[in-house]
Amino acid sequence: MRMYDLIMKKRNGKALSEKEIRYIIEGYVTGSIPDYQMSAFLMAVYFKGMTDEETAIMTDAVARSGDMVDLSGIAGIKVDKHSTGGVGDKTTLIIAPIAAACGVKVAKMSGRGLGHTGGTIDKMEAIPGIKTSLTQEEFFDVVNQTGLSVIGQSGNITPADKKLYALRDVTATVDSIPLIAVSIMSKKLAAGSDCILLDVKTGSGAFMKTLEESIKLAECMVAIGENSGRKTAALITDMDRPLGNNIGNSLEVIEAVETLKGNGPEDLTEVCLSLAANMLYLGGKGELSACMEMAKEAIQTGKALENLIAMVEAQGGDASVIKDPLKFEKAALSYEVKAPKSGYITYMDTEACGIASMMLGAGRETKDSVLDYAAGIILVHKTGDYVEEGAVLATLYAGKKELFESAGAQFIEAVTITDQKTKKEPLIFARIEKGKVERYL
Amino acid sequence: MRMYDLIMKKRNGKALSEKEIRYIIEGYVTGSIPDYQMSAFLMAVYFKGMTDEETAIMTDAVARSGDMVDLSGIAGIKVDKHSTGGVGDKTTLIIAPIAAACGVKVAKMSGRGLGHTGGTIDKMEAIPGIKTSLTQEEFFDVVNQTGLSVIGQSGNITPADKKLYALRDVTATVDSIPLIAVSIMSKKLAAGSDCILLDVKTGSGAFMKTLEESIKLAECMVAIGENSGRKTAALITDMDRPLGNNIGNSLEVIEAVETLKGNGPEDLTEVCLSLAANMLYLGGKGELSACMEMAKEAIQTGKALENLIAMVEAQGGDASVIKDPLKFEKAALSYEVKAPKSGYITYMDTEACGIASMMLGAGRETKDSVLDYAAGIILVHKTGDYVEEGAVLATLYAGKKELFESAGAQFIEAVTITDQKTKKEPLIFARIEKGKVERYL
Repeated sequence: MRMYDLIMKKRNGKALSEKEIRYIIEGYVTGSIPDYQMSAFLMAVYFKGMTDEETAIMTDAVARSGDMVDLSGIAGIKVDKHSTGGVGDKTTLIIAPIAAACGVKVAKMSGRGLGHTGGTIDKMEAIPGIKTSLTQEEFFDVVNQTGLSVIGQSGNITPADKKLYALRDVTATVDSIPLIAVSIMSKKLAAGSDCILLDVKTGSGAFMKTLEESIKLAECMVAIGENSGRKTAALITDMDRPLGNNIGNSLEVIEAVETLKGNGPEDLTEVCLSLAANMLYLGGKGELSACMEMAKEAIQTGKALENLIAMVEAQGGDASVIKDPLKFEKAALSYEVKAPKSGYITYMDTEACGIASMMLGAGRETKDSVLDYAAGIILVHKTGDYVEEGAVLATLYAGKKELFESAGAQFIEAVTITDQKTKKEPLIFARIEKGKVERYL
Repeated sequence: MRMYDLIMKKRNGKALSEKEIRYIIEGYVTGSIPDYQMSAFLMAVYFKGMTDEETAIMTDAVARSGDMVDLSGIAGIKVDKHSTGGVGDKTTLIIAPIAAACGVKVAKMSGRGLGHTGGTIDKMEAIPGIKTSLTQEEFFDVVNQTGLSVIGQSGNITPADKKLYALRDVTATVDSIPLIAVSIMSKKLAAGSDCILLDVKTGSGAFMKTLEESIKLAECMVAIGENSGRKTAALITDMDRPLGNNIGNSLEVIEAVETLKGNGPEDLTEVCLSLAANMLYLGGKGELSACMEMAKEAIQTGKALENLIAMVEAQGGDASVIKDPLKFEKAALSYEVKAPKSGYITYMDTEACGIASMMLGAGRETKDSVLDYAAGIILVHKTGDYVEEGAVLATLYAGKKELFESAGAQFIEAVTITDQKTKKEPLIFARIEKGKVERYL
């Protein structure tokens, strides 16, 4: 077998066999296939795509390039969840405790943020003392004891994906739906859960800008999961405005806690209940409507919050900040952004809002950036609201005064105010199960 | 400027600016752009193409990556010719002397053969003692004195093309029309002639398999030449059967000499007269029909043959083999391939015929193969002929008996005999000048 012929075959639009795909991934990981052939192949995949079967085989090959986590040491059904990333997306901190409170196990590895999107691990680390790096034994113990644990990626998970992603990142081959699906799903398969819920964010703050792209990606990922024996579903959710009102690490933990207390913003609460209900559904807890009721109850009874507190304590964190979020360290300085004119907020460039938060110190511009956990943005008004000229749109938080000028300009640029009233769109655009797409938009 | 953005721009189907294209070629030659980004870019070009303007700029950038030969030391108008390569293509040895005899100068650098196609330099080296590597002064002297000189590529001509071609060769990005055009035309521009005639071979023995592809390539190359201030034209010629009857190095020189004596095979003579007439036309010698008469006369008067003899002598070769081709060293052994049944030869897989000749020792399987100058094939029948079962189709020549079995089988495989009489096609399918395509098929 020669890589040259396989590049040619894909370039000419033909599907590769299982043997051929495994040859490519193994050859790339071991170094017998050089970067320059792989990048030509990836560009050919960008143009010619891959069949569901090719995508499933490549995902399996990438997953098996490293450790395959065996979660059998954890009793019960393990449900994983993945979000494609957005601005203000603190859902893991809300739905994992809800799912645990309702009896499914969440043994989850999460990532850090880069660029305009935050990462769950960064948000958790705003909690003083919390450990996000556990041994496998500690990890299993926390899940068995509290129903959930969220840690950073550990061990040698999908080395092929790391190598492939680094190459795609410099060769303009990132935004290929099958390649994105392989990247996400290989990590999910390696992480070992029985069920996988996918949250595909859509809109100006998301990687996927259109509903149709998002549905295609979700269908592709659901097919991979189901082909690999994992119960898999996906929700397509709105990321054309930030989710909730708080952006920034401790600000998002605070909002997550408020939501678990039943005081969360309407949009965040609605999205989290749907996500949690779908996790319970995948975990075999009954029909979706029944699962929705269970999720609501987990909030009303305070049980979900108890599970979050238990996990924080089990991972060595100071749970007093969860019990009383006022104890979180505050940013040294704040700055109000005001509406430059009266009118309706018709659009928020959500990626630009995320970048404003990053500029304040809440996110990473490069891998080596140091985070300011207290920095970020609290939105007072969002898309659809009517504002008077001079009304406060948002409060920015940072440790240094000079950060406000550029971040404030960045934020105000992101907000479009017109005299057009916008109609209210649903927050959840579609739901994808094996061979089934339900659209709500 | 970042290569990433330029890959993305091309991938998204946009045209690059002059500055961007020069940045890519310069960066690739100096090594600041790595192979893996270049191969992704080339694959994007494969799918999205390049405009005439982009192609012309890239050709110029590749040409200027090395020496630009200055032929001003040679008096008169210099006309170059390039063939995209075929089987039995000994036209340079015929048309360069004709052109020189009619008063245009041919100062030509040629290549060696690889795979199924031969190279002019290999054919010339079948002439005992001839030097194909001259200093610039010697080269100019030979042209000034005899009207023509053909030498191997010397100096640092288009290093960017060498690097690009090596990469394309292993990443399945060779068969892109703009990239082929850049590769050919960059060398022609660097070689310094005033006029360029292109012979785009088409059919089973050629790189281009279809007429439409060939016309596109020719149009692309003519546009580049004209945009660069060189008078340029192209003929699309038949390579669905070998050209002439002889394949192999000394066998082809012998056939070239016979053609210059007026005893050449009809097809080879016709193609050579058309090519030579077009060289004269580009060189400003008058209307095409008048140039055709001049070319015929150069054969009839023996003047073209005199020019060939003069060049061979000036380059240190033993011209006695040209004057009397029987003096060429003969192959030790010969072998007749006979028709397995009666009927019409309806098809010859010309690439396969070229490979049979290579297997006999006339061509190179790898860059290090040693040539047997006397080896090759003399065809007795070609496409369109009626043959009786057992009639000799061709005689094979080689130095070792064991070569005949596989080469004979390869050759007979290449010939299709049926009871269908085929209609005679023209040898020249089209002629392309700036903005003008004349079709003869």
